This record gives sequence, structure tokens and C-alpha cells, in this order.
Amino acid sequence: MSGRFFCIGVGPGDPELLTLKAVRCLGECTTVAYFAKRGHHGHASRIASAYIPPSAGQLRFEYPYTTEHPAEDRTYTSALTHFYENTARQIAVRLNAGGTVGLLCEGDPFFYGSAMHVFERLRAYPCVVIPGVTGMAGAWAEALLPMTQGNDVLSVLPGTLPEDALAAQLAGSDAAVIMKTGRNLPKIRRALERAGRMADAVYVEYATMTASRVLNVRDVTTPAPYFSLILVPGWRQRP
Amino acid sequence: MSGRFFCIGVGPGDPELLTLKAVRCLGECTTVAYFAKRGHHGHASRIASAYIPPSAGQLRFEYPYTTEHPAEDRTYTSALTHFYENTARQIAVRLNAGGTVGLLCEGDPFFYGSAMHVFERLRAYPCVVIPGVTGMAGAWAEALLPMTQGNDVLSVLPGTLPEDALAAQLAGSDAAVIMKTGRNLPKIRRALERAGRMADAVYVEYATMTASRVLNVRDVTTPAPYFSLILVPGWRQRP
Repeated sequence: MSGRFFCIGVGPGDPELLTLKAVRCLGECTTVAYFAKRGHHGHASRIASAYIPPSAGQLRFEYPYTTEHPAEDRTYTSALTHFYENTARQIAVRLNAGGTVGLLCEGDPFFYGSAMHVFERLRAYPCVVIPGVTGMAGAWAEALLPMTQGNDVLSVLPGTLPEDALAAQLAGSDAAVIMKTGRNLPKIRRALERAGRMADAVYVEYATMTASRVLNVRDVTTPAPYFSLILVPGWRQRP
Repeated sequence: MSGRFFCIGVGPGDPELLTLKAVRCLGECTTVAYFAKRGHHGHASRIASAYIPPSAGQLRFEYPYTTEHPAEDRTYTSALTHFYENTARQIAVRLNAGGTVGLLCEGDPFFYGSAMHVFERLRAYPCVVIPGVTGMAGAWAEALLPMTQGNDVLSVLPGTLPEDALAAQLAGSDAAVIMKTGRNLPKIRRALERAGRMADAVYVEYATMTASRVLNVRDVTTPAPYFSLILVPGWRQRP
């Protein structure tokens, strides 16, 4: 009799944005697993800390790299594959012993989440995926910025796209969210200008956390941290 | 001293997918407001019912139409404008009296939500927007379908778009969510075929609710209800 595997979305940062289901399932876990950057407290584990049963075992998985590399970097992708395989194996040991393992996921597990790599390797076990509030939803709520209405097309774009692709995607959408800003900010700005969307673009960092900031993209002077994104609202016929 | 206005995302359907913050804020409301279709129990109010304080007043706002009309229909849009203005006015009366009013929103308030129309008219009051789990996140969790990873572009598309536009958007994205299926299903199917995405497309109805169903789009034989959408997953390099 193998145990159950929960992929638990813990939301964008504010611990109050956990769902009731996330809290209940966390309470049922015999092991709680999470990812962390080397030298950092895991972000997902910090968000959920108040709801992790003191009796639960913890599995901390430290990413082999501290920054994202391009997918063409074979050394990087093979290190990550090895990392996710090892993660899945360690969780499987607990599941095979009948344990209930919860893997914590920032935001929503299936929306650009690391947990997907582990889920794919463990999907033969009884799995429950608990959806979460995404970082982008936390950001537009924080910015008090209504995003999409009626027949709007929304595009979620990685800021790593080439400038031409970004500008074309922005021109072909009513609303957009641009993730992975960081070093890509100057290029994203040029794409926003070309698509004529600079004036409405809003930059949000650390949404729903105490350090949160909302700025017009034009006014961003500091380097963009990992927890930042850009919102281009739709609903251009608003009253 | 005016009161506070909460736009409260109640998630996709399962009452356990309310956030802790939604539950806490609901508990502080002196009035709970919600939209409903004529002759129907309001869906958002049913989701949140266990958390509405018995002492709170309730404001039910019945949509003037039971189906959505095209934006070109002037009689329809002017009836809706009048409806949202009246809704905002009735909530403002409570806010002016110092009350705390929570407006319930299915999914997330700022993601294709009716509450946006009311929020825009009341934003001069102290407002808090509580993000929620979207219907699409509920659907991909239910379908156990990882959606986006790495540098994927995700497009959220209304099924009301013309077939050519749908096909072009699908071809230009790694992942897509198609909303407003209903009568648009035959057209959406043709667009999926043209974009070569029919084989992976998954249809989900009543996600996170007891009546939920997950099917390959090809196998849908019944008319699509309002609570249905189509998921085209990205992450095509998955292990």
C-alpha cells in the first residue's frame, strides 16, 4: 500500500493566501518536501511554515544552480534532470513506505513550477494537485489593476524571449504578463515601447509580501529581483 | 468615516479552495454582495456560503440578461452599464454608513470578473482585492495536466474569437486556455485542428466541483456548459 503524493500550491507569498485545502492537506503530511536555493531558506517552505506539522519529516532539495541557464546549456540541463530524478526517488521511498508526502510549490504547481518535473516522475502514485493563487494574480490584486475582461486575449510571456518576439506578442494581445524580468528589463522596455504599451505597463515586485512595490515600468531604476513581473492590463473599454 | 470594500476571489468551485484571507475577510463583512443569474442561486455565494457570517446583510444582484451578447449590441451594453452603476450605488450606501462590504467573485476578481465593473466605480473607497484560484488553475489541477514550464508562452483565449484568430493565436503559443466554449465548440475544434493542437487538447467541465469531467476534446459529445474550458498544455520537452 503506497501513500499519497500532494503537490501543494502555497500561493504568491502572503501565508494568508494559502487555500483551506492546502492547509488541510499539509496537516495530513508525514513528510513535507520543498525546493530551496543554496544558502537560502526555501521560499515555499517559509510561506507555509505555520501549517507544516511539527511531527512531519522535512526533505529539503537544493537546486544545483543558483541562476537559470539557457536550455541549450547541456551541462545545466543534465544536472537539473539528475536533480529532479533524485528528488523523485527520495519522495518515492517515503511513498513506498506508506507515507503522505506534500511537495510545496510557490504559486500554482502546474504554472511554471519546479514541482512539475517531480510530478511527471511520480504520477503512477495516487496524486492530488492543489491549485494555488499565482504570482501574477497576487501582483494585479496588489496593484489594484483589473487585468482582463470580456473577449480580451491575455498572454503570459517570459522576459527571456527575443525583443522582436516580445514586441509581436504584445502587439497581438489585449493584456500581458511578463515574467522573468531581472536582467531582461531593458529589452522588455524596448519591446513595450515598440508595441505602444509602455504607458500602461506596471511593474510589481514582492507582490503580497511586506517588501512589495508597485511602479510604472518607466520609473524602475533598481535591478529587478526574482520576484518581480510586469503587468500590461487589458479591458481598454473600461468605464 | 467610510467603510472598506473587499473584492473577494472565492476560487473555481470547491469551497476548500477559498484562501485563508478570503475566509477572514468574509468574517469581517457587515454586508456580503454577490451576482446571480435570474432564477439561479448565485454561484459565488454558494461556494462561500459556509463562511458568510449569519449576521451579515446580503445584497443579491441579478444580471439583466441570462446569456452574454456581443459587445456591439447597444441595448445589452447599456443595460449592463446601468446594472453595474446600480450595484455600485447600493454598495456605496453601505460603505458611506461605515459598513464593511465584501463582493464575492468566482475565481479571481481581476481575471475576467464582473466585480471589475463595480471596483472601477468604487475605487475611491478603501479597497482590498483578495486574489483567488482561477478556474483554469482548478481545471489543470483536476486534469493532472502540467501546463507551462520554462520559456513557454501561454495564451488565454476567448472561444468567441473568429476561427482564423483562434488558429493564429494557438499557432503562436506554446500553451493555451480557451474559455467561453459553449456554442463555440465546433469552431474551436476546427481552429485546434488547423493549429495542429487537437491531439493534446483537453476539455474540462465543472472543475473542482462534484460534477467535474475531463475528456479529450475529440470525445466531447454533449453541449459544453458555462463552466467548461479547453486546455492545450505546453512543456513539450517534458521528460
